[in-house]
Amino acid sequence: MKELREAILKQGFGIGHDIVKVDMFLNHRLDIALLTNIGQAFHEAFRDQPVDMILTIEASGIAAAITTAQAFGNLPVIFAKKSKTTSTLNNDVYEAKVYSFTHRTENYIRIAKNYLPAGSNVLIIDDFLANGEAAEGLAEIVRQAGAHVAGIGICIEKGFQEGGQKLRKEGYRVVSLATVTGIDNGKLQLADALED
Amino acid sequence: MKELREAILKQGFGIGHDIVKVDMFLNHRLDIALLTNIGQAFHEAFRDQPVDMILTIEASGIAAAITTAQAFGNLPVIFAKKSKTTSTLNNDVYEAKVYSFTHRTENYIRIAKNYLPAGSNVLIIDDFLANGEAAEGLAEIVRQAGAHVAGIGICIEKGFQEGGQKLRKEGYRVVSLATVTGIDNGKLQLADALED
Repeated sequence: MKELREAILKQGFGIGHDIVKVDMFLNHRLDIALLTNIGQAFHEAFRDQPVDMILTIEASGIAAAITTAQAFGNLPVIFAKKSKTTSTLNNDVYEAKVYSFTHRTENYIRIAKNYLPAGSNVLIIDDFLANGEAAEGLAEIVRQAGAHVAGIGICIEKGFQEGGQKLRKEGYRVVSLATVTGIDNGKLQLADALED
Repeated sequence: MKELREAILKQGFGIGHDIVKVDMFLNHRLDIALLTNIGQAFHEAFRDQPVDMILTIEASGIAAAITTAQAFGNLPVIFAKKSKTTSTLNNDVYEAKVYSFTHRTENYIRIAKNYLPAGSNVLIIDDFLANGEAAEGLAEIVRQAGAHVAGIGICIEKGFQEGGQKLRKEGYRVVSLATVTGIDNGKLQLADALED
Protein backbone atom coordinates (compact mmCIF):
# COMPACT_ATOMS: atom_id res chain seq x y z
CA MET A 1 0.00 0.00 0.00
CA LYS A 2 1.59 3.19 -1.26
CA GLU A 3 0.77 5.64 1.56
CA LEU A 4 1.89 3.16 4.21
CA ARG A 5 5.15 2.39 2.41
CA GLU A 6 5.83 6.13 2.12
CA ALA A 7 5.11 6.68 5.82
CA ILE A 8 7.44 3.82 6.77
CA LEU A 9 10.28 5.13 4.61
CA LYS A 10 9.81 8.78 5.62
CA GLN A 11 8.97 8.51 9.33
CA GLY A 12 9.97 5.02 10.47
CA PHE A 13 13.39 3.78 11.43
CA GLY A 14 15.07 0.60 12.62
CA ILE A 15 17.02 -0.22 15.74
CA GLY A 16 19.60 -2.99 15.63
CA HIS A 17 18.69 -5.88 13.37
CA ASP A 18 15.03 -6.40 14.08
CA ILE A 19 13.25 -3.52 15.84
CA VAL A 20 10.96 -1.53 13.54
CA LYS A 21 9.94 1.84 15.02
CA VAL A 22 6.77 3.29 13.56
CA ASP A 23 5.15 4.55 16.73
CA MET A 24 4.92 8.07 15.28
CA PHE A 25 2.00 6.97 13.10
CA LEU A 26 0.94 3.38 13.87
CA ASN A 27 1.13 2.34 17.50
CA HIS A 28 1.53 5.23 19.93
CA ARG A 29 0.70 8.33 17.93
CA LEU A 30 -1.95 7.39 15.35
CA ASP A 31 -2.19 8.99 11.91
CA ILE A 32 -5.94 8.73 11.47
CA ALA A 33 -6.06 9.60 7.76
CA LEU A 34 -3.46 6.89 7.05
CA LEU A 35 -5.30 4.40 9.26
CA THR A 36 -8.55 5.13 7.43
CA ASN A 37 -6.77 4.28 4.17
CA ILE A 38 -5.38 1.12 5.75
CA GLY A 39 -8.92 0.04 6.62
CA GLN A 40 -10.00 0.60 3.03
CA ALA A 41 -7.04 -1.42 1.75
CA PHE A 42 -8.01 -4.38 3.96
CA HIS A 43 -11.60 -4.10 2.72
CA GLU A 44 -10.31 -4.15 -0.85
CA ALA A 45 -8.20 -7.25 -0.08
CA PHE A 46 -10.90 -9.29 1.66
CA ARG A 47 -14.18 -8.02 0.21
CA ASP A 48 -14.51 -11.11 -2.01
CA GLN A 49 -15.58 -13.31 0.89
CA PRO A 50 -18.02 -13.19 3.80
CA VAL A 51 -16.75 -11.36 6.87
CA ASP A 52 -18.95 -11.05 9.97
CA MET A 53 -16.56 -9.45 12.42
CA ILE A 54 -13.06 -8.10 12.89
CA LEU A 55 -10.84 -9.67 15.54
CA THR A 56 -7.68 -8.08 16.94
CA ILE A 57 -5.62 -7.86 20.10
CA GLU A 58 -5.10 -4.97 22.50
CA ALA A 59 -3.72 -2.37 22.27
CA SER A 60 -2.01 -1.52 19.02
CA GLY A 61 -4.20 -3.66 16.77
CA ILE A 62 -7.36 -1.76 17.71
CA ALA A 63 -6.89 1.27 15.45
CA ALA A 64 -6.57 -0.64 12.15
CA ALA A 65 -9.32 -3.03 13.25
CA ILE A 66 -11.72 -0.12 13.73
CA THR A 67 -11.02 1.52 10.37
CA THR A 68 -11.31 -1.88 8.66
CA ALA A 69 -14.67 -2.45 10.35
CA GLN A 70 -15.80 0.96 9.11
CA ALA A 71 -14.71 0.13 5.56
CA PHE A 72 -16.81 -3.07 5.77
CA GLY A 73 -19.89 -0.97 6.69
CA ASN A 74 -19.50 -0.96 10.50
CA LEU A 75 -18.88 -4.59 11.35
CA PRO A 76 -18.33 -5.31 15.05
CA VAL A 77 -14.74 -5.36 16.34
CA ILE A 78 -13.65 -7.68 19.13
CA PHE A 79 -10.30 -7.15 20.74
CA ALA A 80 -8.65 -9.94 22.73
CA LYS A 81 -7.42 -8.94 26.16
CA LYS A 82 -3.94 -9.81 27.35
CA SER A 83 -3.13 -11.18 30.76
CA LYS A 84 -0.08 -12.54 32.53
CA THR A 85 -2.21 -15.22 34.14
CA THR A 86 -4.42 -17.98 32.82
CA SER A 87 -8.14 -18.06 33.50
CA THR A 88 -8.70 -21.80 33.22
CA LEU A 89 -11.41 -21.64 35.88
CA ASN A 90 -13.47 -19.19 33.83
CA ASN A 91 -15.79 -21.08 31.49
CA ASP A 92 -17.03 -17.90 29.84
CA VAL A 93 -13.87 -17.18 27.83
CA TYR A 94 -11.80 -18.68 25.06
CA GLU A 95 -8.10 -18.45 25.83
CA ALA A 96 -4.80 -19.03 24.04
CA LYS A 97 -1.19 -18.80 25.17
CA VAL A 98 1.03 -16.37 23.28
CA TYR A 99 4.79 -16.22 23.63
CA SER A 100 6.38 -12.80 23.15
CA PHE A 101 9.83 -13.07 21.59
CA THR A 102 10.37 -9.35 22.23
CA HIS A 103 9.75 -9.52 25.97
CA ARG A 104 10.58 -13.23 26.42
CA THR A 105 7.37 -13.71 28.35
CA GLU A 106 4.26 -15.83 28.04
CA ASN A 107 0.93 -14.06 27.92
CA TYR A 108 -2.61 -15.29 27.73
CA ILE A 109 -5.10 -13.71 25.39
CA ARG A 110 -8.81 -14.18 25.87
CA ILE A 111 -12.20 -13.38 24.43
CA ALA A 112 -15.63 -13.68 26.00
CA LYS A 113 -17.38 -16.64 24.35
CA ASN A 114 -20.59 -14.64 23.90
CA TYR A 115 -19.05 -12.38 21.29
CA LEU A 116 -17.65 -15.06 18.99
CA PRO A 117 -20.51 -17.32 17.82
CA ALA A 118 -19.79 -20.65 16.13
CA GLY A 119 -19.90 -20.37 12.35
CA SER A 120 -18.81 -16.71 12.24
CA ASN A 121 -16.48 -15.54 9.49
CA VAL A 122 -13.70 -13.71 11.30
CA LEU A 123 -11.15 -11.37 9.75
CA ILE A 124 -8.04 -11.06 11.93
CA ILE A 125 -6.30 -7.66 11.80
CA ASP A 126 -3.05 -6.64 13.51
CA ASP A 127 -0.45 -3.91 13.24
CA PHE A 128 2.60 -6.20 13.04
CA LEU A 129 3.48 -9.73 12.00
CA ALA A 130 6.87 -10.98 13.20
CA ASN A 131 7.04 -14.52 14.59
CA GLY A 132 3.30 -14.92 14.17
CA GLU A 133 2.54 -15.76 17.79
CA ALA A 134 -0.25 -13.21 18.19
CA ALA A 135 -1.99 -14.18 14.94
CA GLU A 136 -1.64 -17.89 15.78
CA GLY A 137 -3.21 -17.23 19.19
CA LEU A 138 -6.14 -15.36 17.65
CA ALA A 139 -6.63 -18.10 15.04
CA GLU A 140 -6.53 -20.72 17.82
CA ILE A 141 -9.34 -18.88 19.61
CA VAL A 142 -11.38 -18.74 16.39
CA ARG A 143 -10.95 -22.53 16.09
CA GLN A 144 -12.02 -23.05 19.71
CA ALA A 145 -15.19 -21.11 18.92
CA GLY A 146 -16.00 -23.25 15.89
CA ALA A 147 -15.71 -20.14 13.75
CA HIS A 148 -13.80 -19.58 10.51
CA VAL A 149 -10.74 -17.41 9.81
CA ALA A 150 -11.69 -15.42 6.69
CA GLY A 151 -8.18 -14.02 6.45
CA ILE A 152 -5.36 -12.28 8.28
CA GLY A 153 -4.66 -8.63 7.47
CA ILE A 154 -1.35 -7.18 8.67
CA CYS A 155 -0.19 -3.57 8.40
CA ILE A 156 3.55 -4.30 8.50
CA GLU A 157 5.10 -7.74 8.08
CA LYS A 158 8.67 -8.33 9.16
CA GLY A 159 9.68 -10.39 6.16
CA PHE A 160 12.90 -11.46 7.85
CA GLN A 161 11.03 -13.27 10.60
CA GLU A 162 9.14 -16.48 10.12
CA GLY A 163 5.51 -15.69 11.05
CA GLY A 164 4.22 -14.88 7.57
CA GLN A 165 5.70 -18.01 6.02
CA LYS A 166 4.36 -20.21 8.81
CA LEU A 167 0.80 -18.84 8.62
CA ARG A 168 0.69 -19.09 4.82
CA LYS A 169 1.95 -22.68 5.00
CA GLU A 170 -0.90 -23.45 7.38
CA GLY A 171 -3.29 -22.29 4.68
CA TYR A 172 -4.27 -18.88 5.98
CA ARG A 173 -4.73 -16.07 3.50
CA VAL A 174 -2.34 -13.44 4.85
CA VAL A 175 -2.33 -9.95 3.32
CA SER A 176 0.40 -7.57 4.48
CA LEU A 177 0.17 -3.96 3.33
CA ALA A 178 3.94 -3.46 3.61
CA THR A 179 6.86 -5.84 4.19
CA VAL A 180 10.08 -4.78 5.86
CA THR A 181 12.84 -7.01 4.50
CA GLY A 182 15.68 -5.72 6.63
CA ILE A 183 17.33 -2.90 8.53
CA ASP A 184 20.49 -1.30 7.23
CA ASN A 185 22.13 1.13 9.65
CA GLY A 186 18.80 2.26 11.03
CA LYS A 187 17.18 2.54 7.61
CA LEU A 188 14.16 0.31 6.95
CA GLN A 189 14.22 -1.65 3.70
CA LEU A 190 10.95 -2.55 2.05
CA ALA A 191 9.95 -5.31 -0.35
CA ASP A 192 8.76 -4.14 -3.75
CA ALA A 193 5.06 -3.29 -3.69
CA LEU A 194 4.19 -6.37 -5.76
CA GLU A 195 5.86 -8.67 -3.23
CA ASP A 196 4.03 -7.26 -0.22
CA MET B 1 -26.43 11.04 24.08
CA LYS B 2 -29.53 9.16 23.10
CA GLU B 3 -28.04 6.13 21.27
CA LEU B 4 -25.50 5.55 24.05
CA ARG B 5 -28.16 5.81 26.78
CA GLU B 6 -30.30 3.31 24.88
CA ALA B 7 -27.38 0.89 24.45
CA ILE B 8 -26.56 1.11 28.16
CA LEU B 9 -30.15 0.43 29.21
CA LYS B 10 -30.72 -2.32 26.65
CA GLN B 11 -27.41 -4.19 26.66
CA GLY B 12 -25.51 -3.11 29.77
CA PHE B 13 -25.91 -4.41 33.29
CA GLY B 14 -24.49 -3.86 36.74
CA ILE B 15 -22.71 -6.16 39.15
CA GLY B 16 -22.88 -5.43 42.85
CA HIS B 17 -22.90 -1.75 43.74
CA ASP B 18 -20.33 -0.30 41.38
CA ILE B 19 -19.37 -2.49 38.40
CA VAL B 20 -20.85 -1.32 35.10
CA LYS B 21 -20.67 -3.97 32.37
CA VAL B 22 -20.86 -2.59 28.85
CA ASP B 23 -18.20 -4.74 27.21
CA MET B 24 -20.71 -5.95 24.62
CA PHE B 25 -20.48 -2.60 22.84
CA LEU B 26 -17.82 -0.35 24.41
CA ASN B 27 -14.70 -2.08 25.66
CA HIS B 28 -14.30 -5.64 24.43
CA ARG B 29 -16.75 -5.99 21.58
CA LEU B 30 -17.00 -2.61 19.86
CA ASP B 31 -20.19 -1.33 18.21
CA ILE B 32 -18.57 0.73 15.46
CA ALA B 33 -21.71 2.59 14.36
CA LEU B 34 -22.36 3.65 17.96
CA LEU B 35 -18.71 4.63 18.44
CA THR B 36 -18.82 6.73 15.27
CA ASN B 37 -21.81 8.59 16.75
CA ILE B 38 -19.92 8.99 20.02
CA GLY B 39 -17.06 10.65 18.13
CA GLN B 40 -19.50 13.04 16.51
CA ALA B 41 -21.06 13.87 19.88
CA PHE B 42 -17.63 14.78 21.31
CA HIS B 43 -16.94 16.94 18.26
CA GLU B 44 -20.26 18.69 18.82
CA ALA B 45 -19.38 19.28 22.48
CA PHE B 46 -15.85 20.63 21.97
CA ARG B 47 -15.90 22.15 18.49
CA ASP B 48 -16.11 25.69 19.91
CA GLN B 49 -12.43 25.70 20.87
CA PRO B 50 -9.09 24.82 19.30
CA VAL B 51 -8.17 21.13 19.50
CA ASP B 52 -4.86 19.91 18.01
CA MET B 53 -4.86 16.29 19.12
CA ILE B 54 -6.79 13.63 20.99
CA LEU B 55 -5.18 11.98 24.00
CA THR B 56 -6.35 8.73 25.57
CA ILE B 57 -5.05 5.67 27.39
CA GLU B 58 -4.72 2.10 26.23
CA ALA B 59 -6.65 -0.04 25.58
CA SER B 60 -10.34 0.76 25.92
CA GLY B 61 -10.07 4.53 25.35
CA ILE B 62 -8.63 4.06 21.87
CA ALA B 63 -11.88 3.37 20.00
CA ALA B 64 -13.72 6.54 21.05
CA ALA B 65 -10.51 8.57 20.62
CA ILE B 66 -10.24 7.43 17.00
CA THR B 67 -13.83 8.23 16.06
CA THR B 68 -13.53 11.61 17.80
CA ALA B 69 -10.35 12.35 15.82
CA GLN B 70 -12.23 11.44 12.63
CA ALA B 71 -15.10 13.77 13.54
CA PHE B 72 -12.54 16.58 14.01
CA GLY B 73 -11.22 15.98 10.47
CA ASN B 74 -8.54 13.37 11.23
CA LEU B 75 -6.62 14.87 14.12
CA PRO B 76 -3.77 12.74 15.47
CA VAL B 77 -4.52 10.41 18.39
CA ILE B 78 -1.94 9.64 21.05
CA PHE B 79 -2.58 6.82 23.46
CA ALA B 80 -0.67 6.62 26.73
CA LYS B 81 0.90 3.27 27.47
CA LYS B 82 0.47 1.57 30.81
CA SER B 83 3.26 -0.10 32.73
CA LYS B 84 3.69 -1.68 36.14
CA THR B 85 7.12 -0.07 36.45
CA THR B 86 8.37 3.47 36.36
CA SER B 87 10.74 4.69 33.65
CA THR B 88 12.40 7.51 35.58
CA LEU B 89 15.67 6.89 33.78
CA ASN B 90 14.08 7.50 30.38
CA ASN B 91 14.24 11.21 29.53
CA ASP B 92 12.22 10.78 26.35
CA VAL B 93 8.87 10.23 28.04
CA TYR B 94 6.39 12.07 30.23
CA GLU B 95 5.07 9.84 32.98
CA ALA B 96 2.35 9.93 35.64
CA LYS B 97 1.35 7.51 38.37
CA VAL B 98 -2.23 6.21 38.27
CA TYR B 99 -3.87 4.26 41.06
CA SER B 100 -6.49 1.72 40.03
CA PHE B 101 -9.24 1.38 42.63
CA THR B 102 -10.63 -1.61 40.73
CA HIS B 103 -7.42 -3.63 40.84
CA ARG B 104 -5.88 -1.92 43.89
CA THR B 105 -2.63 -1.47 42.01
CA GLU B 106 -0.43 1.42 40.96
CA ASN B 107 0.34 1.81 37.29
CA TYR B 108 2.47 4.24 35.37
CA ILE B 109 1.22 5.81 32.17
CA ARG B 110 3.60 7.39 29.72
CA ILE B 111 3.82 9.26 26.46
CA ALA B 112 6.83 9.93 24.25
CA LYS B 113 7.69 13.63 24.60
CA ASN B 114 8.06 14.02 20.82
CA TYR B 115 4.35 13.56 20.22
CA LEU B 116 3.09 16.15 22.72
CA PRO B 117 4.56 19.55 21.84
CA ALA B 118 4.36 22.48 24.29
CA GLY B 119 1.43 24.75 23.55
CA SER B 120 -0.76 22.01 22.03
CA ASN B 121 -4.50 22.02 22.71
CA VAL B 122 -5.26 18.50 23.87
CA LEU B 123 -8.69 16.89 24.12
CA ILE B 124 -8.69 13.97 26.55
CA ILE B 125 -11.10 11.13 25.69
CA ASP B 126 -11.82 8.00 27.72
CA ASP B 127 -14.46 5.31 27.92
CA PHE B 128 -15.12 5.58 31.67
CA LEU B 129 -14.83 8.11 34.46
CA ALA B 130 -15.03 6.68 37.98
CA ASN B 131 -12.54 7.98 40.53
CA GLY B 132 -10.87 10.11 37.91
CA GLU B 133 -7.38 8.67 38.33
CA ALA B 134 -6.80 7.99 34.63
CA ALA B 135 -8.01 11.43 33.51
CA GLU B 136 -5.96 13.12 36.26
CA GLY B 137 -2.88 11.20 35.08
CA LEU B 138 -3.43 12.24 31.47
CA ALA B 139 -3.99 15.88 32.52
CA GLU B 140 -0.82 15.73 34.62
CA ILE B 141 1.14 14.61 31.53
CA VAL B 142 -0.37 17.45 29.49
CA ARG B 143 0.81 19.88 32.21
CA GLN B 144 4.31 18.37 32.18
CA ALA B 145 4.43 18.99 28.44
CA GLY B 146 3.44 22.64 28.80
CA ALA B 147 0.35 21.90 26.75
CA HIS B 148 -3.30 22.78 27.45
CA VAL B 149 -6.25 20.54 28.30
CA ALA B 150 -9.01 21.66 25.91
CA GLY B 151 -11.52 19.40 27.65
CA ILE B 152 -12.24 15.92 28.92
CA GLY B 153 -14.77 13.79 27.02
CA ILE B 154 -16.10 10.69 28.75
CA CYS B 155 -18.42 8.07 27.29
CA ILE B 156 -19.86 6.86 30.61
CA GLU B 157 -19.45 8.64 33.93
CA LYS B 158 -20.12 6.80 37.15
CA GLY B 159 -22.00 9.60 38.84
CA PHE B 160 -21.85 7.80 42.19
CA GLN B 161 -18.06 8.03 42.28
CA GLU B 162 -16.12 11.21 42.82
CA GLY B 163 -13.99 11.63 39.68
CA GLY B 164 -16.34 13.91 37.77
CA GLN B 165 -16.91 16.26 40.68
CA LYS B 166 -13.18 16.46 41.42
CA LEU B 167 -12.19 17.23 37.82
CA ARG B 168 -14.91 19.86 37.42
CA LYS B 169 -13.85 21.50 40.70
CA GLU B 170 -10.32 21.70 39.32
CA GLY B 171 -11.70 23.73 36.43
CA TYR B 172 -11.70 21.13 33.65
CA ARG B 173 -14.55 21.12 31.21
CA VAL B 174 -15.83 17.54 31.52
CA VAL B 175 -18.49 16.29 29.11
CA SER B 176 -19.97 12.85 29.80
CA LEU B 177 -22.28 11.38 27.18
CA ALA B 178 -24.12 9.28 29.76
CA THR B 179 -24.08 9.17 33.55
CA VAL B 180 -24.84 6.03 35.55
CA THR B 181 -26.26 7.14 38.89
CA GLY B 182 -26.60 3.75 40.48
CA ILE B 183 -27.17 0.02 40.18
CA ASP B 184 -30.38 -1.54 41.39
CA ASN B 185 -30.40 -5.34 41.40
CA GLY B 186 -28.22 -5.51 38.32
CA LYS B 187 -30.13 -2.79 36.49
CA LEU B 188 -28.21 0.34 35.53
CA GLN B 189 -29.86 3.64 36.44
CA LEU B 190 -29.13 6.68 34.31
CA ALA B 191 -29.26 10.40 35.01
CA ASP B 192 -31.77 12.34 32.94
CA ALA B 193 -30.28 13.36 29.59
CA LEU B 194 -30.11 17.02 30.65
CA GLU B 195 -28.03 16.18 33.69
CA ASP B 196 -25.44 14.14 31.78
